[in-house]
Amino acid sequence: MSQPKSAKSEFRAIDVIRNKRDGIELSRAEIEGLVNAYTRGDIPDYQVSAWLMAVVLRGMTRAETAALTDAMLRSGEVLDLSSMPARKVDKHSTGGVGDKTSLVLTPLVAAAGIAVPMISGRGLGHTGGTLDKLESIPGFNVNLPVANFRRVLEACGCAMIGQTPEIAPADRKLYALRDVTGTVESPYLICASIMSKKLAEGIDALVLDVKTGSGAFMKSEKDAVFLAELMVETGERMGKHVVALITDMDQPLGMKIGNALEVVEVLEVLRAGGPEDLKELCLHTAGWMLHLGGASKSVAEGKQHSEQLLSSGKALEKFRQMVQLQGGDARVIDDPKRLPQARGSVQVLSAKNGFISSMQCEQIGTACVILGGGRERKEDSVDPGVGIVLHKKVGDAVASGEPLATIYYNSDERLDRARQMIATACVIADEAPSTKRPLIHRVIQKSGEKR
Amino acid sequence: MSQPKSAKSEFRAIDVIRNKRDGIELSRAEIEGLVNAYTRGDIPDYQVSAWLMAVVLRGMTRAETAALTDAMLRSGEVLDLSSMPARKVDKHSTGGVGDKTSLVLTPLVAAAGIAVPMISGRGLGHTGGTLDKLESIPGFNVNLPVANFRRVLEACGCAMIGQTPEIAPADRKLYALRDVTGTVESPYLICASIMSKKLAEGIDALVLDVKTGSGAFMKSEKDAVFLAELMVETGERMGKHVVALITDMDQPLGMKIGNALEVVEVLEVLRAGGPEDLKELCLHTAGWMLHLGGASKSVAEGKQHSEQLLSSGKALEKFRQMVQLQGGDARVIDDPKRLPQARGSVQVLSAKNGFISSMQCEQIGTACVILGGGRERKEDSVDPGVGIVLHKKVGDAVASGEPLATIYYNSDERLDRARQMIATACVIADEAPSTKRPLIHRVIQKSGEKR
Repeated sequence: MSQPKSAKSEFRAIDVIRNKRDGIELSRAEIEGLVNAYTRGDIPDYQVSAWLMAVVLRGMTRAETAALTDAMLRSGEVLDLSSMPARKVDKHSTGGVGDKTSLVLTPLVAAAGIAVPMISGRGLGHTGGTLDKLESIPGFNVNLPVANFRRVLEACGCAMIGQTPEIAPADRKLYALRDVTGTVESPYLICASIMSKKLAEGIDALVLDVKTGSGAFMKSEKDAVFLAELMVETGERMGKHVVALITDMDQPLGMKIGNALEVVEVLEVLRAGGPEDLKELCLHTAGWMLHLGGASKSVAEGKQHSEQLLSSGKALEKFRQMVQLQGGDARVIDDPKRLPQARGSVQVLSAKNGFISSMQCEQIGTACVILGGGRERKEDSVDPGVGIVLHKKVGDAVASGEPLATIYYNSDERLDRARQMIATACVIADEAPSTKRPLIHRVIQKSGEKR
Repeated sequence: MSQPKSAKSEFRAIDVIRNKRDGIELSRAEIEGLVNAYTRGDIPDYQVSAWLMAVVLRGMTRAETAALTDAMLRSGEVLDLSSMPARKVDKHSTGGVGDKTSLVLTPLVAAAGIAVPMISGRGLGHTGGTLDKLESIPGFNVNLPVANFRRVLEACGCAMIGQTPEIAPADRKLYALRDVTGTVESPYLICASIMSKKLAEGIDALVLDVKTGSGAFMKSEKDAVFLAELMVETGERMGKHVVALITDMDQPLGMKIGNALEVVEVLEVLRAGGPEDLKELCLHTAGWMLHLGGASKSVAEGKQHSEQLLSSGKALEKFRQMVQLQGGDARVIDDPKRLPQARGSVQVLSAKNGFISSMQCEQIGTACVILGGGRERKEDSVDPGVGIVLHKKVGDAVASGEPLATIYYNSDERLDRARQMIATACVIADEAPSTKRPLIHRVIQKSGEKR
C-alpha cells in the first residue's frame, strides 16, 4: 500500500495528490510540476482528476491559488502588448441570463482610448456566451489566430475572440476534465481558470462582474463574494489592478435573451437607449474600466465620460469598426433585421392581475436553451435566431391576459416546454414587492495600501 | 458549468461522483452501477479516480460500504463450495513484518477438518506477502486456475493461491487505480477490497488479523479498531461470521524476516517449536477459526486442539500434502537447506549494553526490501534467499558487541544501507521497558443478538 520515495527529489504526481488529500499546503514547485506535466501529457487524466477532487474537497490557500493561476497562465503564450501605448483593460463576467454587457463594453471602453483585448467563452448550461452572440452577426469571425487578433486590436483598440490553442492550454485540458469528473464547482479552480486566461491577455487591469442570484452560478451572495475576493487577491498577487463588482442576476439582465436578440439590445444601448438595468450596469462597469485604465480620475467621471461616448455615437462607430475588421456584416448595425430571425413568435400571457414578485432566472435561461438558443453539451450548435423578449421585470404591475414575454422559436416541438417554463418562472403576487434588489450589490477591491 | 439531467433516470457516473462529493449517501443501485460499468470498461479511469478521492475524503456509511463490497464481490465468480461437507473458514491479515501465520494456519486448521480455501496477495512496501513466501518453495504453484484450486481443496482440505482473473475483477481494476491516485488509504475502500475477495471464496466464516503498531499500515490502534469494526459489520451484513483480532505489529512477528527464512520458521512452528509470539498468535487465531468453523465449543478448546495438531505432526503432514498437490518440492520440509540460500551473511552488533526498548518495525521491513526480499513496485521480482534473523526482541537484555541480528544478503551494494537501517531500528535503553505491549490487543465481534 505504501509507495517508495524516490532517492532524488524529482516531481511525482502521486505525492502532490497525497499532500492535497491530507490537507498539506502545496508548494509552487509541486503545483507547477503538476500543471506542466499534465499540459505536456506526461501524467494521465486519472491522476489529475483525483487531485482535482482533492482540491474541491480540501480547498486551497491564497498562495496555492495564485501558484495554480500562474502555472496555468504560463502553460502557453502570454500576449506581450507592450508595443501598444494604450493601457489594456478587460472585463469578465461569471455568466448569467441576458448578460450582453461585453458587447457594449468592449467598443465603449475602446472609444475612450483604452485597449480591450477580449478573449471570451461560449454559453454552457442555462447561460449565454459572448462568442455565440457575436457569431449571430453574419460573417463575424471569433476564431482569429493571435497575430490577427493583435492586428485588429492595433487597428481599432479592441478585438473579441475565443480561446486559442496558444493561450493557457492547461486550462483547456483541465476544464474538459473537470466537466466530466464533477470538479467544476470549486471557487479555487474557477478562479484559476478565469484569471489564467484573462491575465494571459497581457492586460494591466481587469474588472470582474461576479453575478449572484437565481440565474447565477453563485446563487448566494456569500459564495459570490468569496469567489470575487479570491480572484481580486490572485490578480493583485500577480501585479494587476483587479476590481470585482457583485451584481444582481436574480432576474435576466435587460429584456432580450437569445443570441441575435441580444445583439439588437446591444445596439440599442450603443445608441444610448436600451433597458435601464443593462445600460446602468454597462456604464458602471465602464466607469471602473476607464478609471483603472487611467482615462478618468474617478469611477463617477469614467461613467460620465462613457455616457458621452454612447450619446455621441463614438462607441457605436467603434463597434462598427470592430465588426468590419473581424469579417462581420456591419450592415446589421443600421438594419438589425439582417440578423437571423426566428420563424414564429408567440406571447406568454399573464393568468392574473398583480405584480411580478420574482423570476426564476435560471429557468428562463433554460427555456432559451430548450428553444435551441443555448447548448446542453459543449458539442451542440446554437440557433442564433430564437429567444425570449420579456415585457415585464420584477416589480412591474401586470393585468390578466397581458403579455409577460414573447417567445421567438423555430421548432413547434420545443415551444410548449419553453412556454410552460417561462409562465411558471414569473411569480405574480397581489402586492408589489416591498424591497428591490440592488443592481450592484457591492464592490470588492484590495485595500489601497497594498496597491 | 451545469450538466443537463437526462430525461430517463439512467445511470450517469457524473451524478454518482457529485453525490459522493456533496456528502449525499449513495444508493445500492448507484454503487452497483458504477462498479459494474467500470468492470465492463464503460466508464473511464478518470471518472472513477475522482469518485475514489471523494470516497477517501467524504467516507462511506455502513450501508454504502456493504453495497460496494457486494458489488465488487459479484463482479466476478463466487466460489460455490456447497458440495464440500466441511465448513469453510479463512483468515486474513492486514500485513506486517515477519507475519507468516497464514502458512501455519492453513494446514493447521485443515488438519482439524475445516476447509481453508485461501486466496492471498503479494508483498508490497515494507510488508511481506504470503504468495512470495510460498514461492520460495521450489515448484510451488500459486497460480492455479479455479478448477485446480477446488481439486486441491477437495483432496487435502486446504489450498493457497493468488487472486485469479475470475474472482472480484472489479477489485483488481480498482486497486490498480487506487495505487496510482493516492486513494489507497481509506478504511472503506480497504474493507471493500479485502472483504469482496475473501467472501468470493465461498466461506462460512472469517477471522481477520488487523495489525497495529510501527510495522502495520494502521499505526494507531484507533484506526485499526475502526477498520476492524467496519469489516466485521460488513461481513455480518452479508451473512458471514466474522471476528477481528487487533494484534501487535510494533516489532516483527517471530525472529525471521525474508521469504525462505520465514518458511523455515513456519516449519519450526508446525513442529510445535518456533518463537513464542508467532506460535501464540497462530494458536489463538486457529482457536477462533476452529470455533467459528464448529470444530470446538470455545476458542480455548479450539486452541488446545490446535496445540495437539501441532505436537502430533498432523498439521505438518497437511502442509506436506498441500505442497505436493500444488507442485512444490516437499523435500524442503525435512531438509530446509533445499530452500533458496543467500550468498553471504553478516551480523549487526550492539554498540552498547542495555535493553531493547523498541524496534522501528517498518524500518526493519524496509531493510528486507532493500536486500531484495520485497518489492518497491508491483512489477519488481523478489529474491527468496535474503532476509534478516533477529537475535533479540523488545525487552531483551543486550551486551555491547553482542549480535542484534544476522543479515542474509546477495548484493554487497545493498548490504550497507540495510545494516545501518537495522542498527538504528533497534532502540537500546539503560533500563528494561516497564510495560510490555500485549500480543493480542482486543477482539472485535458483533454482539450476539445480531447473529
